Amino acid sequence: MSTGELLFGIHSIDAALTHDPKNILELYFETNSDNPRVRELSERARDLGLKPHSRDRAALDRMTGGARHQGAVARYKAPPPRTESDLYDLVDKAEKDTLLLVLDGVTDPHNLGACLRSAEAAGVTAVVVPKDKAAGITPTVRRASSGAADRVAFFAVTNLARTMKALKDKGVWLVGLAGDAKQDFYTLDLKGPIGIVMGSEGEGMRRLTSESCDFLAHIPMRGDVESLNVSVATGVTLFEALRQRR
Amino acid sequence: MSTGELLFGIHSIDAALTHDPKNILELYFETNSDNPRVRELSERARDLGLKPHSRDRAALDRMTGGARHQGAVARYKAPPPRTESDLYDLVDKAEKDTLLLVLDGVTDPHNLGACLRSAEAAGVTAVVVPKDKAAGITPTVRRASSGAADRVAFFAVTNLARTMKALKDKGVWLVGLAGDAKQDFYTLDLKGPIGIVMGSEGEGMRRLTSESCDFLAHIPMRGDVESLNVSVATGVTLFEALRQRR
Repeated sequence: MSTGELLFGIHSIDAALTHDPKNILELYFETNSDNPRVRELSERARDLGLKPHSRDRAALDRMTGGARHQGAVARYKAPPPRTESDLYDLVDKAEKDTLLLVLDGVTDPHNLGACLRSAEAAGVTAVVVPKDKAAGITPTVRRASSGAADRVAFFAVTNLARTMKALKDKGVWLVGLAGDAKQDFYTLDLKGPIGIVMGSEGEGMRRLTSESCDFLAHIPMRGDVESLNVSVATGVTLFEALRQRR
Repeated sequence: MSTGELLFGIHSIDAALTHDPKNILELYFETNSDNPRVRELSERARDLGLKPHSRDRAALDRMTGGARHQGAVARYKAPPPRTESDLYDLVDKAEKDTLLLVLDGVTDPHNLGACLRSAEAAGVTAVVVPKDKAAGITPTVRRASSGAADRVAFFAVTNLARTMKALKDKGVWLVGLAGDAKQDFYTLDLKGPIGIVMGSEGEGMRRLTSESCDFLAHIPMRGDVESLNVSVATGVTLFEALRQRR
């Protein structure tokens, strides 16, 4: 099998066929899959001039190390990582519509994938994570994101606090979510260029990240649960920003 | 080991100790657990007069069939299922503050658990599901809900359409979420007694459920993703209702 990154799952393969078919190096579908979506992907691949291989389920299981592939696996040449200057270009271009999601320490790949899915649905300008303190884009993240991981502008930066400072210098207001913050999230004006900053579920933001925010706020809750799941909190805050910007 | 339902995971055991310790039949903690929260739960259990057993990890693994228990397992006598008349009593009591979550066909236990967690954080009056078309409260649901499954008023009803009709007769307005609905969710007045009705991720609501709603609406989205995760959509809609009611 050729090298390249492993992609699997119907959503991920669908996204690669739609957005970046020329970087699909090899494509494998389950022989006689009873899933009509697998057959449809296989036909689309052939229409695009790709030559998908047919493999039985056990062979696909071996390729993905047992992870759930739904009968669709590919080797994919991922686009070169974006640089920080690309991030600043995106912000310059989006101007006052800039809506960033900064995730500090979201290490669970399911949570990261779910956050990326919410972020894409909200049409964020970009997602920013620290390179060393977060889950990268793995096959599990891709699957949990329903393919959003390959469509959202994703930046893993070396020094998160420095990047946050640079974003503030560009006029982006950074709002950090923290359960113990005094300010009520819904009292904030989210209409200008903003970044929503979320910490990990257990630990919250790191101190330096929290100190790099312009505001700290909490989502008012009822009930006993300490906090919302990070992807739900991400959805609630990003969609509140969208609502205010209508 | 005595009968009763299996409970496991730190959040679930914590919730049972806090809200319903008298119904814990047997309690098991991992011998020499290196997790301080397990030791703390064990101490709390003893303070409550319970006699927790010490077991090695392999024994706990066997009890839970390999599911992630975090070193804390119990046998629990679940409270008797609530009847539909309890549901109507809760609605009568909550009056105009009634906020219901109706889940039609959410069969994935992780999704159901995540919905219950969001529902509790939003302080819903009750969650209603159809008995035959939804995941019940299983150990996996409990864990995914961070224990909310045992704290939220949860009703599995025999005939969902009939229950929805009865709720409407009590003055509850039912708002169904559907990606293809014309109405924008944010244009709705959510201040009175309402129920938010969500379908399954793949299929949406069943026809009869959809026809039983007073309104159908969609959350306006950007990006390519077909839909939000059902627990995120639940969070976004319930917290918008809370925002309007402030």
